[in-house]
Amino acid sequence: MTSRTRTDTAVSRPPGKTGAFPVGLLGHGTVGAAFDDLLSSRVERIADRTGRRPELSGVLTRSRGNFEEILDRSELIVELIGGIDPAYEYVSRALRAGRHVITANKQLLSQHGEELWGLAREHGVLLGFEAAVAGVVPVIRVLGESLAGAEIQRIHGIVNGTTNFILTEMTRSGMSYGEALAEAQRLGYAEADPSDDVGGRDAAAKMAILARMAFGTPVHIDQVRYEGIEEITVHDIAYARELGLELKLIGTAERLPGGVSVRVHPAFLYDGHPLASVNGPFNAVTVESEDFTEITMSGPGAGGPQTASAVLGDLISAITTGGSQPAVTESFAPDLRIVDDVISAFYLHVEVADRPGVLAAVAALLGEQGASIKSVVQSGLGEHARLVMVTHPLLESRLLAATEAIGRLDFVHSRPRAIRVIDEEFE
Amino acid sequence: MTSRTRTDTAVSRPPGKTGAFPVGLLGHGTVGAAFDDLLSSRVERIADRTGRRPELSGVLTRSRGNFEEILDRSELIVELIGGIDPAYEYVSRALRAGRHVITANKQLLSQHGEELWGLAREHGVLLGFEAAVAGVVPVIRVLGESLAGAEIQRIHGIVNGTTNFILTEMTRSGMSYGEALAEAQRLGYAEADPSDDVGGRDAAAKMAILARMAFGTPVHIDQVRYEGIEEITVHDIAYARELGLELKLIGTAERLPGGVSVRVHPAFLYDGHPLASVNGPFNAVTVESEDFTEITMSGPGAGGPQTASAVLGDLISAITTGGSQPAVTESFAPDLRIVDDVISAFYLHVEVADRPGVLAAVAALLGEQGASIKSVVQSGLGEHARLVMVTHPLLESRLLAATEAIGRLDFVHSRPRAIRVIDEEFE
Repeated sequence: MTSRTRTDTAVSRPPGKTGAFPVGLLGHGTVGAAFDDLLSSRVERIADRTGRRPELSGVLTRSRGNFEEILDRSELIVELIGGIDPAYEYVSRALRAGRHVITANKQLLSQHGEELWGLAREHGVLLGFEAAVAGVVPVIRVLGESLAGAEIQRIHGIVNGTTNFILTEMTRSGMSYGEALAEAQRLGYAEADPSDDVGGRDAAAKMAILARMAFGTPVHIDQVRYEGIEEITVHDIAYARELGLELKLIGTAERLPGGVSVRVHPAFLYDGHPLASVNGPFNAVTVESEDFTEITMSGPGAGGPQTASAVLGDLISAITTGGSQPAVTESFAPDLRIVDDVISAFYLHVEVADRPGVLAAVAALLGEQGASIKSVVQSGLGEHARLVMVTHPLLESRLLAATEAIGRLDFVHSRPRAIRVIDEEFE
Repeated sequence: MTSRTRTDTAVSRPPGKTGAFPVGLLGHGTVGAAFDDLLSSRVERIADRTGRRPELSGVLTRSRGNFEEILDRSELIVELIGGIDPAYEYVSRALRAGRHVITANKQLLSQHGEELWGLAREHGVLLGFEAAVAGVVPVIRVLGESLAGAEIQRIHGIVNGTTNFILTEMTRSGMSYGEALAEAQRLGYAEADPSDDVGGRDAAAKMAILARMAFGTPVHIDQVRYEGIEEITVHDIAYARELGLELKLIGTAERLPGGVSVRVHPAFLYDGHPLASVNGPFNAVTVESEDFTEITMSGPGAGGPQTASAVLGDLISAITTGGSQPAVTESFAPDLRIVDDVISAFYLHVEVADRPGVLAAVAALLGEQGASIKSVVQSGLGEHARLVMVTHPLLESRLLAATEAIGRLDFVHSRPRAIRVIDEEFE
């Protein structure tokens, strides 16, 4: 299955436009090994389609291989190391040397994307990164090619499989967050240190990349506001289900008057939203535009073979078209500012003393901030009562001011829990 | 917001290929006019991205324009006439003259695709046809590029928006087929003569194209078995809902031992199937592969602006990559035979006399053909009773033999209604 025996044939053939297409592989972990396997089994098919025969020219791991030598004898470098150091150095050196590069590295692109995409354009090579966002779901190619001429208004995405698995488990079985996380770790859907996933940073990196492609304006991960799912309770999920709402960790990139907003946070979706039925470790992305209403794409968001499959698609494009259709062009809207305060509907959960006038007082404070209530469920629990409300959309800063004021009422037991709601009819 | 000043810095411009990119437009109906509008509004954006400025070099309609002159002064021809004659002649002449062609014409490609794709490869030009299948849903590009290296097992698609609209209306409101068709015509989702849509032939043409791309074997529309939705009753839909089933017109292209099967027929989907929640005039396609499990794409399947949007994506690819990555390569599996008798699960609806032993007799005849029953609901209606069953999968020819035998039983009032069922757990 490995292609060690092929290495020497590749070396003996100088890079040319026919025959072998030498590929250097950096990293041989889960994804790297899966790519190695997949490539071996698809060599003939790719040779038939493209006229070139991809062959591994070398593999770099911590314990073997030499980057210089691999670079020297490759037309294309596949970077599956992850992280910034040494991936940043290897990728930028490969591009400067006129090699195509394929990477699954969202951290790298959400921090150094502008420089790397610029290098790829400058040297006329392909920098493929389908595997960096939503695994095999072809959102990068679709944004960069199919929708290259479209005016995109908004992207909503479930772009982290770990958190979607955890929220699905909490919803289906009533597990606590901690139990669902442990289950995800047991099944290999969450890492030993899950903080990048559950804290929202992994999704934020992916949304920065999608926003850059959709709006043509540079977006660095530091410009993406993100919240994770660590504070979500089974109660939030259960109460909201009574209102027909499904909880997901949603990434949003949207064009607003005077700028764009890119953010990641837990959000309730109304039944019928195209992302509401995406369960388990799947990813999905909805692209909205007045040009075509909306397109939704979904599929497995991670996994060795799936990610390898995305890399293979980019590899075939590198052979056939090279860098002639760069996925990311020069920024064409460099002056779009990042908008911080956006308009959202909210789910609110308030624990109060069960006495007359409570709902009126809470509603008055919401009203002062311009929040109107779409639906409310009040349930008595002996001395206490629980108010679960959904508001119509308002500026987040105003909702925050309202919840602070509500939290100071003497019959309110704790500051209200507030979770955003995405409702098609509002958008 | 626009970046007109940046045009001159655009990179990857092929030498000698700057300035205007002349586009000849054949047809100026709903889609043609929408494309004309969209192109005008996106000229600057495309010039920024590609370094070329697309401009209409001429428009051919029944009453104006001259094909020779338009061809002569265009680098690319957009064919939005539809039908075979004269579209076939114009498209083949344009390709022979070394012009890129973009078409939304599924009839043309499902009948003459092999010749036209061959001409495009021979002349090194792009033959773009994203708009021919599932409108703006980017299934052609994803199959031809992202998944070019994947081993695809099966495609299921809702590729006709008219029938999906009609079935959704019948499901939601209990309208009859005739009422829902009239509603679709009133809203512009069905044509005055809807027979190609409701009879399944439109979907069959699209499935022939998808099967060709997925399996690399030529598939002519005459090799696609298709059935329409004209015989579907609200009762079928209502009874099956009790079993958690949703009715859709489903196109299937699948790899089977020794061949492929390409077919279109009404089918019940279990709740949770990615296509079960696709409603109204939307289209959706699920691509299954052991490489990556499954990918689903959905969006509006028709409409002038949506189809124009798909054409625009192909236009940008023609400018940037030309014909370097042909969507359809030479057939690489020319010996795949078309399999006629396939394995399906079935929903059966039998009206019987309400007396003892009826279920046993029906079950015995099913058992003789190897059909085992997964679920059954029997309801009494005075002297009559209704049996609604779902079988486990079996060869369709055997199910047919069983229903014929059941229809001959003296206590059975008419031949059973049999509708296929697509169940994830079977596949």
